[in-house]
Amino acid sequence: MRYFNSNAVEELPSRYRANLINTITGYKSANLVGTVNRSGRANVAIFNSVVHLGSNPALLGFVLRPLTVRRDTYRNISENRSFTVNAVTQEIYEAAHQTAAKFEENESEFERTGLQPLFREGHMAPFVSESPIQLGCTYMNEYPIMENGCIFIVGRIDHIHVNESLLTEDLWAKLDEEQIVSIVGLDGYAAPKIKDRLAYARPDESAKSILHGAQKV
Amino acid sequence: MRYFNSNAVEELPSRYRANLINTITGYKSANLVGTVNRSGRANVAIFNSVVHLGSNPALLGFVLRPLTVRRDTYRNISENRSFTVNAVTQEIYEAAHQTAAKFEENESEFERTGLQPLFREGHMAPFVSESPIQLGCTYMNEYPIMENGCIFIVGRIDHIHVNESLLTEDLWAKLDEEQIVSIVGLDGYAAPKIKDRLAYARPDESAKSILHGAQKV
Repeated sequence: MRYFNSNAVEELPSRYRANLINTITGYKSANLVGTVNRSGRANVAIFNSVVHLGSNPALLGFVLRPLTVRRDTYRNISENRSFTVNAVTQEIYEAAHQTAAKFEENESEFERTGLQPLFREGHMAPFVSESPIQLGCTYMNEYPIMENGCIFIVGRIDHIHVNESLLTEDLWAKLDEEQIVSIVGLDGYAAPKIKDRLAYARPDESAKSILHGAQKV
Repeated sequence: MRYFNSNAVEELPSRYRANLINTITGYKSANLVGTVNRSGRANVAIFNSVVHLGSNPALLGFVLRPLTVRRDTYRNISENRSFTVNAVTQEIYEAAHQTAAKFEENESEFERTGLQPLFREGHMAPFVSESPIQLGCTYMNEYPIMENGCIFIVGRIDHIHVNESLLTEDLWAKLDEEQIVSIVGLDGYAAPKIKDRLAYARPDESAKSILHGAQKV
């Protein structure tokens, strides 16, 4: 195996270092975060850091980097506490990637990338119309990460819109039915096929597949 | 599309609710976190919440749920600040899943699942021998998530061991070369193929593939 200690990593050209450190922790979620500013301009930005925090209440978290184009997202969320989280599919991954470009402040990434904003009654921030999973969220809190200035945002999931085709009888979303993608680093895209689903792990039982059934309660 | 508001989610049977909320935010990273306790017993547990925080310094974060079997991980990290993060491959995903079983406190998940602990000089916590990406990390901080009692752990990556076969010339890890898996919810496993890698997004250029080249600096 190749070995890098901290010094070796530090001495890498910055792009190489970013590639290495961004990719080695594995496949990440691919989501478009939609927001709206005070004058009603809709913004959308791609994130690879959305994680599950809990189901009751339904909470998610994601990491914001303060010094990127994604500041619009932070400012908008700070202003009105409303955002959406929308799954990226193989059909829209190129447009989704383009939302990371440094557009002018008065430009909407929706207009520039061709993604369609979808405003729904009862939620201020726009959803992404093309997305098969659209979550309407409310900002709950933020945790400044002292170690490097990132911000961990915690949001509550208030509205779930999900394509019927994705759901098993026990409400497990088969993400590959709609070619939802996964991200490698900041720029790699994979459209996984789900290979297996395993029963709840118990000490004296070996792993059991439940791919074609459902979890037993 | 099917619609769930907060009330509808709350009223779901708890297993269904967990399935839905765990899966809808997308594919997650699959990593085994290795730790060791005061008496030298090696523990290992699967996590689907490891995210990238920054490259300089190299930092990662992950979410710990306080009321699960993963308490061992937390106690061990609190005691000696040392842990490892190891990629899960298709070869070991069943053993990796089994680490989530509620074993007795004096049992090692390594022994019970057949995964091989690998102790390396200069790092206290054990790596997972079968893993093609093995990261030696030091605990930096923890952020208690007030909204539901989760803990967001921040660690510094001090040692990187990575199979040569994974690395492109610009040190981007092609995770599919070693069949690294991605997780859906708490129990689904996919072994993605990377379909594309896109050039750095710029406002007036359309998405450009760099899958068979490297990022231009």
